[in-house]
Amino acid sequence: MKTRAAVAFEAKKPLEIVELDLDGPKAGEVLVEIKATGICHTDAYTLDGFDSEGIFPSILGHEGAGIVREAGSGVTSVKPGDHVIPLYTPECRQCKSCLSGKTNLCTAIRATQGKGLMPDGTTRFSHKGKPIFHYMGCSTFSNFTVLPEIAVAKIREDAPFDKSCYIGCGVTTGVGAVVNTARVTPGANVVVFGLGGIGLNVIQGAKMVGADKIIGVDVNDSKEEWGRRFGMTHFVNPKKIDGDIVQHLVALTDGGADYTFDCTGNTTVMRQALEACHRGWGTSVIIGVAEAGKEISTRPFQLVTGRVWKGTAFGGARGRTDVPKIVDWYMNGKIQIDPMITHVLKLEEINKGFDLMHEGKSIRSVVVF
Amino acid sequence: MKTRAAVAFEAKKPLEIVELDLDGPKAGEVLVEIKATGICHTDAYTLDGFDSEGIFPSILGHEGAGIVREAGSGVTSVKPGDHVIPLYTPECRQCKSCLSGKTNLCTAIRATQGKGLMPDGTTRFSHKGKPIFHYMGCSTFSNFTVLPEIAVAKIREDAPFDKSCYIGCGVTTGVGAVVNTARVTPGANVVVFGLGGIGLNVIQGAKMVGADKIIGVDVNDSKEEWGRRFGMTHFVNPKKIDGDIVQHLVALTDGGADYTFDCTGNTTVMRQALEACHRGWGTSVIIGVAEAGKEISTRPFQLVTGRVWKGTAFGGARGRTDVPKIVDWYMNGKIQIDPMITHVLKLEEINKGFDLMHEGKSIRSVVVF
Repeated sequence: MKTRAAVAFEAKKPLEIVELDLDGPKAGEVLVEIKATGICHTDAYTLDGFDSEGIFPSILGHEGAGIVREAGSGVTSVKPGDHVIPLYTPECRQCKSCLSGKTNLCTAIRATQGKGLMPDGTTRFSHKGKPIFHYMGCSTFSNFTVLPEIAVAKIREDAPFDKSCYIGCGVTTGVGAVVNTARVTPGANVVVFGLGGIGLNVIQGAKMVGADKIIGVDVNDSKEEWGRRFGMTHFVNPKKIDGDIVQHLVALTDGGADYTFDCTGNTTVMRQALEACHRGWGTSVIIGVAEAGKEISTRPFQLVTGRVWKGTAFGGARGRTDVPKIVDWYMNGKIQIDPMITHVLKLEEINKGFDLMHEGKSIRSVVVF
Repeated sequence: MKTRAAVAFEAKKPLEIVELDLDGPKAGEVLVEIKATGICHTDAYTLDGFDSEGIFPSILGHEGAGIVREAGSGVTSVKPGDHVIPLYTPECRQCKSCLSGKTNLCTAIRATQGKGLMPDGTTRFSHKGKPIFHYMGCSTFSNFTVLPEIAVAKIREDAPFDKSCYIGCGVTTGVGAVVNTARVTPGANVVVFGLGGIGLNVIQGAKMVGADKIIGVDVNDSKEEWGRRFGMTHFVNPKKIDGDIVQHLVALTDGGADYTFDCTGNTTVMRQALEACHRGWGTSVIIGVAEAGKEISTRPFQLVTGRVWKGTAFGGARGRTDVPKIVDWYMNGKIQIDPMITHVLKLEEINKGFDLMHEGKSIRSVVVF
């Protein structure tokens, strides 16, 4: 079949809108009509050539929502007509990781996914007879895409695609970091470093679970209004305080935060986030993806005196199990998404979405097909 | 009153056995006759001048066992005749830390303890009219010492002093790191870096809770026999393998250890311990005390993919609550101590105990009064 898609033919070049050939789903796979897709920093990271493992030509996009249109042989968990969110972190429920009950990092198709291929080692996309690679197992910048059955979460049909697509990455990453990874408790004090889309979702996750102080930290004062909209109780601009940001936050939280979250990707901030934790139990969660080669450091004394350093990917959420719950939370009003979708674009405008992100003018741009 | 003690008059000099003056217990304090005390690396660290906050002249020693001989006014939890272990980490049960239920790092007397003083800001020891400072709130290198009531754990009277004293630091630190901090689960795979006294206690803690593989790592082959005596199932000498120790351990544990413990104090080893953890859930616990100024580092990717980095002090044990339990475990044969006490010395021989430690010839030397 044919599909319209935005293709990344090479790094550091705009995406091109072209018509591609798409092979139908093989055994264990489904064909999904993508109805909407967010544009995430990770797409830009790859397109801008920062990801040393980026593969081109490929179809980027990993934050989508759509409808199953065809199921390959053996598919049992979804059927044509089902509304789904593609999962860059699948959930096979059979591998060592899934069965551990301790992580969402399913390894069933990791090797092929990392190579831009479907689990059978081939690609479904082609252009003028040449293969086009998949991206993060999703490739949602295409009107139609093929996904392994284990890489789609079935969601309720009344959830709007142009909002629920954001649950495919940003919302789940931020809210999930609070709920699944940190397990923030009611009454806890929380500090969130970086008030982009992820940071705002951490804030609303912390609000949802009943955190007490929710302190946002950003060097950009314009983020204060955004933070407060989602539940932030205090704002700190590190450039506008006297002295050290860590000491400032420790004082503001009566000894340190119970939980801190780095949503910046800056390794210096990651250290500050750890050290702003309360002695004895404070837990710091790294969400941001650091530049290649950058390392985090601290004195071991910080850990020996009880702070815990951890990280999260996809908010610790098991895709097929937890993503439908987050859609429910959105539909039930426990979390907000609508105000975060600052721009809705057509596929032809997708490069504008990347520009808006680079210029810091969007929280989330969504492309609707 | 008078007491015989080994005094550290200054750093980098042998201890001197002298008779000191000791003031009796004030309100909330107890006088304890120390019957036995271990010599720990931390004592040597201070005596050798590595601790920038070391205070002299002082009476070192923090790993003791003895009998309450006198109780100051207001003391209710112990009485003369009670057998006790002094606690360098007290347990007031009233401060924010104690009441959190999430840490053993009681802060009730931290400020004065760090200055070598009792909670009222004075010292009980003096020599020829000049004050001698306390050390880690314990000063067990003295036949008699004064301690705050919140800094003694009452233990059963049938426990031998010359063994139970080791529970005052080393045993609790190692076993507690497994039980309280890591919470190692039955069937888990464990890697222990450094097979000194702490490492051996981690090993026997892991054995006690039903760990599966218990892998010891040490550059000294003579430690293999020691490790196996306490439950180690595999021994790795990093100097005698081909390639990288982390990759070697990941292969040996089918993807990485569930729990790793650094008992070396070497920050390079601390990183190896983290990176030898299993993707998704492996937890690394820092027990060793690093040299001043040294830092730990890793790529944030290690945490984002699910590894957890934490540390422990006094094995996460609440002194008055958990130490008596560990004494029970010893008396019931769940853990061993006797083989670890390699040397029993008189107070006059205490400097020999430091020499044996520096020469790597002892697991634990104990001084009996």
